[in-house]
Amino acid sequence: MKISLTKGKSEGPTKLNAFDNALLDADIGNVNLIPVSSMLPPNTEVIPMPELKPGEMTNCVLSRQYSDNPGDEIAAVIAYAQADEMGCVIETSGINKSVKDLEEEAKFMAEYMIEKRELEILDYKAVIQTHTVIDKACVVAALIYHNPIRH
Amino acid sequence: MKISLTKGKSEGPTKLNAFDNALLDADIGNVNLIPVSSMLPPNTEVIPMPELKPGEMTNCVLSRQYSDNPGDEIAAVIAYAQADEMGCVIETSGINKSVKDLEEEAKFMAEYMIEKRELEILDYKAVIQTHTVIDKACVVAALIYHNPIRH
Amino acid sequence: MKISLTKGKSEGPTKLNAFDNALLDADIGNVNLIPVSSMLPPNTEVIPMPELKPGEMTNCVLSRQYSDNPGDEIAAVIAYAQADEMGCVIETSGINKSVKDLEEEAKFMAEYMIEKRELEILDYKAVIQTHTVIDKACVVAALIYHNPIRH
Repeated sequence: MKISLTKGKSEGPTKLNAFDNALLDADIGNVNLIPVSSMLPPNTEVIPMPELKPGEMTNCVLSRQYSDNPGDEIAAVIAYAQADEMGCVIETSGINKSVKDLEEEAKFMAEYMIEKRELEILDYKAVIQTHTVIDKACVVAALIYHNPIRH
Repeated sequence: MKISLTKGKSEGPTKLNAFDNALLDADIGNVNLIPVSSMLPPNTEVIPMPELKPGEMTNCVLSRQYSDNPGDEIAAVIAYAQADEMGCVIETSGINKSVKDLEEEAKFMAEYMIEKRELEILDYKAVIQTHTVIDKACVVAALIYHNPIRH
Repeated sequence: MKISLTKGKSEGPTKLNAFDNALLDADIGNVNLIPVSSMLPPNTEVIPMPELKPGEMTNCVLSRQYSDNPGDEIAAVIAYAQADEMGCVIETSGINKSVKDLEEEAKFMAEYMIEKRELEILDYKAVIQTHTVIDKACVVAALIYHNPIRH
């Protein structure tokens, strides 16, 4: 299966519009996102974010954080840890948390999930989007599943 | 792609049952609803709500509002704005908000989303379901995706 | 359509990991869960939980309860009521609620849903997972849809 990582941030006049703007900034604003919980098949290939067709149903793991408190530091993190037999996707987010703490938190959760399955991490990557709120703002970070395997 | 708009309202003995009853009132009570975020492909056709097969997986954007406070005015709004290249779906809901305010809020968000994409609205429609709570009640308004385009 | 019922419980170092561990305990930790609302087609067959392929997209109704308050009794319930023309799935959960109360609550909601549709229950089953929290813990109970009917 192919996947892509992406992220975006934006201010907006309403909570919904700030979110929509952040999705546009992440190049996933024109599709129908269907959130899924967070596992990868073996042999996952990470590709650059392709252009998606408007209105497509698109499976993803989405991390988001919104705040309308000016000055807040908001952050959204998405990470994956790929092992031989499968991979795990981790999302976390926060307000006024340090980037270092969020990155360590994601790494810890990923390592724990892979160890719990008695596997070893072959590839790990985390993407973090931060923003200092001016008025109403949203950050997103997402892992997009291309050609998902349906059960 | 074909879509339908629908709405429903109901009282019920529990929160889950009031919700289920409202879905039945909206003719979407017998399917498996999978919520998606909110974009339409080009050339979307709006059709009257067809009869859906029990247990079908059905993509939708769903607006809902529940209250167990007798006398509350609850409302759920679903709206779409179709442009040439794509369309946007908006959901909002509220307790004791005026219908006019909710309709204006939906319109504002739709117009903003379409302008942000540098498009023009060719077709706009909003559906609102209101209800005055007697005991425990739920209202729903939904946009149903028929034959969705999968990524 | 074929379905399976499953349940699991676990402690974990974080909320996400306790949840992931509980999903592993329920044999659904290696797939991508897509939550759906809660109806069954006619002629549903209940099968033992098969081994799922890592990373598969898997439709489910999921009941979950988390607590980080040591001593809490947490419980997750999933139930289904199958009638001739369709079936209903019920989820409920709680902290420090009696098993008897939760089971009666699920039964009541199921019976009400089936009666509302003017049908009769041919088959009813509830699965409950309980756990006494040591540090951070999660319980899950789920109904898994195999070969779902897409709209």
